[in-house]
Amino acid sequence: MQLGLVGLGKMGANMRTRIQQAGHEVVGYDPRPEVSDVASLPDLVAALDAPRAVWVMVPSGEPTRTTVAQLAEHLEPGDLVVDGGNSKYTDDQPHAELLGRNKIGYIDCGVSGGVWGLENGYGLMVGGSDDDVTRMMPIFDALRPPGERADGFVHAGPVGAGHYAKMVHNGVEYGLMHAYGEGYELLCAEPLIDDVEGTLRAWTQGTVVRSWLLELLVRALQEDPGFSEISDYTTDSGEGRWTVEEAIRHSVPANVISAALFARFASRQDQGSPALKAVSALRNQFGGHAVTDTRGRSVGETGAPPTS
Amino acid sequence: MQLGLVGLGKMGANMRTRIQQAGHEVVGYDPRPEVSDVASLPDLVAALDAPRAVWVMVPSGEPTRTTVAQLAEHLEPGDLVVDGGNSKYTDDQPHAELLGRNKIGYIDCGVSGGVWGLENGYGLMVGGSDDDVTRMMPIFDALRPPGERADGFVHAGPVGAGHYAKMVHNGVEYGLMHAYGEGYELLCAEPLIDDVEGTLRAWTQGTVVRSWLLELLVRALQEDPGFSEISDYTTDSGEGRWTVEEAIRHSVPANVISAALFARFASRQDQGSPALKAVSALRNQFGGHAVTDTRGRSVGETGAPPTS
Amino acid sequence: MQLGLVGLGKMGANMRTRIQQAGHEVVGYDPRPEVSDVASLPDLVAALDAPRAVWVMVPSGEPTRTTVAQLAEHLEPGDLVVDGGNSKYTDDQPHAELLGRNKIGYIDCGVSGGVWGLENGYGLMVGGSDDDVTRMMPIFDALRPPGERADGFVHAGPVGAGHYAKMVHNGVEYGLMHAYGEGYELLCAEPLIDDVEGTLRAWTQGTVVRSWLLELLVRALQEDPGFSEISDYTTDSGEGRWTVEEAIRHSVPANVISAALFARFASRQDQGSPALKAVSALRNQFGGHAVTDTRGRSVGETGAPPTS
Amino acid sequence: MQLGLVGLGKMGANMRTRIQQAGHEVVGYDPRPEVSDVASLPDLVAALDAPRAVWVMVPSGEPTRTTVAQLAEHLEPGDLVVDGGNSKYTDDQPHAELLGRNKIGYIDCGVSGGVWGLENGYGLMVGGSDDDVTRMMPIFDALRPPGERADGFVHAGPVGAGHYAKMVHNGVEYGLMHAYGEGYELLCAEPLIDDVEGTLRAWTQGTVVRSWLLELLVRALQEDPGFSEISDYTTDSGEGRWTVEEAIRHSVPANVISAALFARFASRQDQGSPALKAVSALRNQFGGHAVTDTRGRSVGETGAPPTS
Repeated sequence: MQLGLVGLGKMGANMRTRIQQAGHEVVGYDPRPEVSDVASLPDLVAALDAPRAVWVMVPSGEPTRTTVAQLAEHLEPGDLVVDGGNSKYTDDQPHAELLGRNKIGYIDCGVSGGVWGLENGYGLMVGGSDDDVTRMMPIFDALRPPGERADGFVHAGPVGAGHYAKMVHNGVEYGLMHAYGEGYELLCAEPLIDDVEGTLRAWTQGTVVRSWLLELLVRALQEDPGFSEISDYTTDSGEGRWTVEEAIRHSVPANVISAALFARFASRQDQGSPALKAVSALRNQFGGHAVTDTRGRSVGETGAPPTS
Repeated sequence: MQLGLVGLGKMGANMRTRIQQAGHEVVGYDPRPEVSDVASLPDLVAALDAPRAVWVMVPSGEPTRTTVAQLAEHLEPGDLVVDGGNSKYTDDQPHAELLGRNKIGYIDCGVSGGVWGLENGYGLMVGGSDDDVTRMMPIFDALRPPGERADGFVHAGPVGAGHYAKMVHNGVEYGLMHAYGEGYELLCAEPLIDDVEGTLRAWTQGTVVRSWLLELLVRALQEDPGFSEISDYTTDSGEGRWTVEEAIRHSVPANVISAALFARFASRQDQGSPALKAVSALRNQFGGHAVTDTRGRSVGETGAPPTS
Repeated sequence: MQLGLVGLGKMGANMRTRIQQAGHEVVGYDPRPEVSDVASLPDLVAALDAPRAVWVMVPSGEPTRTTVAQLAEHLEPGDLVVDGGNSKYTDDQPHAELLGRNKIGYIDCGVSGGVWGLENGYGLMVGGSDDDVTRMMPIFDALRPPGERADGFVHAGPVGAGHYAKMVHNGVEYGLMHAYGEGYELLCAEPLIDDVEGTLRAWTQGTVVRSWLLELLVRALQEDPGFSEISDYTTDSGEGRWTVEEAIRHSVPANVISAALFARFASRQDQGSPALKAVSALRNQFGGHAVTDTRGRSVGETGAPPTS
Repeated sequence: MQLGLVGLGKMGANMRTRIQQAGHEVVGYDPRPEVSDVASLPDLVAALDAPRAVWVMVPSGEPTRTTVAQLAEHLEPGDLVVDGGNSKYTDDQPHAELLGRNKIGYIDCGVSGGVWGLENGYGLMVGGSDDDVTRMMPIFDALRPPGERADGFVHAGPVGAGHYAKMVHNGVEYGLMHAYGEGYELLCAEPLIDDVEGTLRAWTQGTVVRSWLLELLVRALQEDPGFSEISDYTTDSGEGRWTVEEAIRHSVPANVISAALFARFASRQDQGSPALKAVSALRNQFGGHAVTDTRGRSVGETGAPPTS
């Protein structure tokens, strides 16, 4: 089939390639003329045969909202828009309503797989009506991994369900990554372990903890032993925050995912942690604490036990 | 080669089968006569040709310590013992010393893979001397998954390193499982998600969070939709506790793994949580708090705002 | 001075008494005729001399929003409204704007102290303009504890700052209560401690952890030894959730406060924890784990080490 | 009564003063001759009338163990030793047995109050036999705060109970301090709050969160506004670690106390967090993630949605 694709960045460009390799036609639009097939969004619409299908793959938030609003203006009844970005699920219903006023369909699709998706296929989580989803199945089938459709694709529910599922996916991803991170750190700290990278690599087959993320971790360590080139400054996309907010809304105890999120926050406090400054200040107030070494043993003067 | 194997329970029996399938000879001992090849530990030793190799696969703690002590008595200089159970790594050096007095070698080997190891191979983490490890490689190669040796086997360091690596592996496993658990719970809580099991299944290919544990989770949900047959009472083997203790010893922040461990503790408080009883009692003391519904909305009488 | 007071529930009635004891006149309105001085909100307005000051002390959310909207209709330019309830701070600016259209002033005031405030005075956190706050100082001085004004009263910032400060106060309260709860639980668990209540009581003077909450905890234990009458089911007002949401918005790692919040969520899962059911199901999948006792020691059959 | 006091550091010297002010005689020993009343531990013993009481106030671990061993050698049957330091409770039974062989009594006494104890009195948690505790009551009464004995003193149980109670006290202290720290950090982060120090000061009277620690926090902020002179590098004495280890031993979920402990660990990672380096490296592997600002908003190029 024919697909319009808005956004030809790292993800969009790879997805275009994969869709084309499956035999579909893609007309791409991107504000950077050197990668774009058409000069403008109206040109994209004009270049497509009705009923059109347009996939939006631009940053979430304002850029996506603007793009959808423009499409609502230029598309026609019977056309269909897919938001494949990492939008917050609360944007989906407004998008569906805006487009629906012009009888344009709407699907939200969470896409996972990163730069590896071109080769491996992307995991897809979709929200929308049965009719709209059915209509897009050729594209979904082109994008998803080979093998059984259900292993890599789900029509999770109505509009919003796709981005919701993707948000939870990313929240889980936070937890998984941090669990491996803690294990890595503990292996590094223990003198008995001569071969940290080898230990992680051994875990990639046969063990309970084997996973694709673990394979990536081994690969990263092989490229940069000891992570000497890597900062511990870790950004976060919105999905981790949204996942914890949703956990709060639904009264779900999310201790693991929130711990992973908060660790990222802490990594960005370049002026130090105000909370820990308060703790330090308190200790000074009540104790004049003796200095202790990193094993918690008091190394203060004789006769001066740690006070508290 | 020839191997003595002590302990023919679920894990030991499977491992015997896998080792035999690789063409090795296994003489097994178990206190249950119906599964044992010999009548006693001394008989096992007598049935093996020197220099002997004996793999111990019994519960960690007292059973393993007793078995190793008996082997120290019955084996001869030049023999070799492997502890393949989930022993605490602090047991390994004492075992090595006890056996070493009689010039008997010692290897600790963490084994992961559960009941699936028979078919898939086991991930192996090994601690010991180069000579001892080299000598056991035929058995290790029989047990580990097919493919590259390093993907499923590591000689992580000296005596103790194998069980240390396995302990950390299990700590990471706690974190991974709980991250998936939180994601599952949040998907269940959200009305937009019509198909929780399908969403998890979609995650098994192409996504960042794909893993063997996730495949097992889908399998479990397919066997028991909604986990209607499953209690949330979750036991813990020692390794999760030991991992957090080691994190404390090495000053490693282990927020994720400890959160997963503590959640298991909480699941076993059949009299309720004393900590939360204290919190409830405090709220009664200062507030006579209005009752609130599960979304945290006050449902008390008009004119009675929640107090605190 | 003269004050109109809307809401004569547990908090409002006590506050009326305290304000009257300071020599001020209070005209109270409550939908329950048996406690109300006037028959309706318009009657309340009519009974007050202009320029009027009306304190709203009703449940947060819809009830407060409705009351403020009604006051915006009935009050006159130059009048002043104080919201003393536990409103979310995001309600304050809309309230200020709504009232401001009629030239009616607005102050948000977080009030802490619970049922003890009548006797001890209430801690007050205020947001609003300097002029409005100055005008209300006689009432604030009546409500706050005796002694230095700054120990119990703060003009924290513009409209919204009072409820924000109160929200953070309640978040901190969650953390403090749970810290004591964990300590209480650990003292209960340790056989060496013969006298848990006595230990906590000893902490109330001289120690670093002494506090008013600790005194309440001792009092609660004296009234109900062992908390035999108390459920661990713990509700939560909105402030704990809002505090964690604000921490997320401001990238503040809130590990302690969120842990306290999530523990309350867990206490309310009367069908058990879905996350832990998933963990249990996973363990069954890969292990057929041997049963372990509550100390984590394997008690399975010989030859069956815990598998993973 | 007469008391021998070993260790005249910050705590010991203050305690000597307070005991003397209550009319008791103190003979002090410290390795620093300029503060010591006698030249050696044997001289201390010689200077006391039998039956002697000797209070040990030296750093926990090796210094305390050495001192107790020396006292076991030099004291006589009927004498009594009190360990008032922050020893781990597992040291107490060995001390009691060592001294008991010579019919010397033993008490473990947790002491809280820091440098303020001289003026306010110290909170005391005692473990030992009834007879030994009764004998020391004059000293305990001199040290504890004025007022009711039970508000500042407890005979918590047999030998070990005093240090156990003190350990839990310090664990709770970690949680309390970090709860205030998180609240402080959030107040600092919110532009609506013009007066953070004033807000905390307002909390010191009337509110639910009022406490001695809060008063110290206000005092610290007044001495050093914004904590500009304070590092967030926070050491930890052993008690926080031991508390979490005991929680693990007793299967007590200690999410709050462990979060406070781990935050201190994180503050000391001057090479950055290895766990977060692993997380960063993973993100690079699968995503080539767009850079995001500290509010989590993607600021990457158009067409490049965050990938995962």
